Amino acid sequence: MSELFKSLESAPCGESLTADELLDAVRWNADGLIPAIAQQHDSGEVLMLAWMSRQALEETLANGRVCYYSRSRAKLWRKGESSGQVQSLVGARLDCDGDTLLLSVDQSGPACHTGRRSCFYIALDKQGGEVDAAPLVDPATLYGDGNTR
Amino acid sequence: MSELFKSLESAPCGESLTADELLDAVRWNADGLIPAIAQQHDSGEVLMLAWMSRQALEETLANGRVCYYSRSRAKLWRKGESSGQVQSLVGARLDCDGDTLLLSVDQSGPACHTGRRSCFYIALDKQGGEVDAAPLVDPATLYGDGNTR
Repeated sequence: MSELFKSLESAPCGESLTADELLDAVRWNADGLIPAIAQQHDSGEVLMLAWMSRQALEETLANGRVCYYSRSRAKLWRKGESSGQVQSLVGARLDCDGDTLLLSVDQSGPACHTGRRSCFYIALDKQGGEVDAAPLVDPATLYGDGNTR
Repeated sequence: MSELFKSLESAPCGESLTADELLDAVRWNADGLIPAIAQQHDSGEVLMLAWMSRQALEETLANGRVCYYSRSRAKLWRKGESSGQVQSLVGARLDCDGDTLLLSVDQSGPACHTGRRSCFYIALDKQGGEVDAAPLVDPATLYGDGNTR
């Protein structure tokens, strides 16, 4: 863990830092990314997990529209750029060891490329798994080519 | 994405699979791990993100007590084994591309090794960050050596 995040463990409420101090100390992985959890701000539903580079995070904080880094396409991914289903940023948080983001968002329509509200639609227990949510919309109406989200 | 998760995109609600079919298709990373988000089942609060190996996930599903894989200690980490602050599993979900888990849990006391309820206690915006939650308990009372959680 970085010295900065270690020092915040015992910091009082209200202790503040600049964005650069924090982003310099974030533990980006070998690819320069950290996982970002998107949670609907009012319902509390966890919608998806995607990845952010420093550039994606800085753009998200500056614009208020969530931008991830697509590992499969190896470029910035402005959520909704293909589907129109954008995520507006309500708030962002870093975790105790500076390697995960929690985003409070306002998601327009489905967050999932399958047309479902949330990406977490496969319930799992020790016996097995089951699909337990249906698409809100047909993904063919969201994507022209069916390959991007 | 695996063929199995691709095929589930258009599966109807109720489509079921065995646990082995799903776990064989999960996209474990190069270290054999996937991220697992822990969400308090009743309040919806996102408590933490940690990592699971297949063995950790199988143990969690079998026992109902959440077991992660500690990357820093390179071994299974039964949440609460040092602190007593265990996580009971309420439900588990896989996401659309089979590389992230969402765990619904019942967390006893603080989830965070700093003694805070949630690990996400650093609020961040374009100006900067601020610690905005205080420990529920002094971490020194949770850990004998201060190094494990």
